[in-house]
Amino acid sequence: MLKIEHIGIAVTSLADAVPLFEKLLNSPCYKTEAVASEQVTTAFFRQGDTKVELLEATGPNSVIARFIERKGAGMHHIAFEVSNIEEEMQRLAAEGFTLLQDKPKPGADNKLVCFLHPKDTSGVLVELCQEVK
Amino acid sequence: MLKIEHIGIAVTSLADAVPLFEKLLNSPCYKTEAVASEQVTTAFFRQGDTKVELLEATGPNSVIARFIERKGAGMHHIAFEVSNIEEEMQRLAAEGFTLLQDKPKPGADNKLVCFLHPKDTSGVLVELCQEVK
Repeated sequence: MLKIEHIGIAVTSLADAVPLFEKLLNSPCYKTEAVASEQVTTAFFRQGDTKVELLEATGPNSVIARFIERKGAGMHHIAFEVSNIEEEMQRLAAEGFTLLQDKPKPGADNKLVCFLHPKDTSGVLVELCQEVK
Repeated sequence: MLKIEHIGIAVTSLADAVPLFEKLLNSPCYKTEAVASEQVTTAFFRQGDTKVELLEATGPNSVIARFIERKGAGMHHIAFEVSNIEEEMQRLAAEGFTLLQDKPKPGADNKLVCFLHPKDTSGVLVELCQEVK
């Protein structure tokens, strides 16, 4: 793990949450991006060397819609940048963590990603991500 | 807001969670610290320019005990480093955010801190923190 790449926050409406986080962080949203495979639209803010990613569901079966139903809007995941995602997946599987993907999959922001099951990580949804070169 | 200073994670047991996060992050816990006023014990890990803070309740009235009862273990707050906490509190109050303290209070890790009410921040508990000089 190199660093915290971003914090993912589940929101009910980007139209409301983007101006709210612009006020909170005193910093503009610099990008929005749809991730069709996940049924989400994302909005990004820089904070030092890290980012805040807001996530809005675009359909009722989106993981974000189901998360908000279960827990309400709020912090959804922590993404850690890794230099070699396949090596890190192997290391964590060998340590007993449960990977939610067999292979890295494309995520937002030009990344390959893999999630760990929160049952093994004190309830925290952990994302591994590696920049696509 | 200068950067994400740390992510706070509510855990049921530091005895279990510290070795778990050492494996997950592949990085040692470098400090534990009790914050008696909050009825919590904290454990810290470095991740790049940011930290992960695990929080265990030391009493049933601790905010962490009540959070775990309500939502389960998991991500609890995001702390943003600021250069002047009183100015930032004034700016955010003027923007309509609700501050949970009138004045900065001592927190873990040699910081002055103030929390914002999550009702104004899409369900995210936000901490402002400034290093004590």
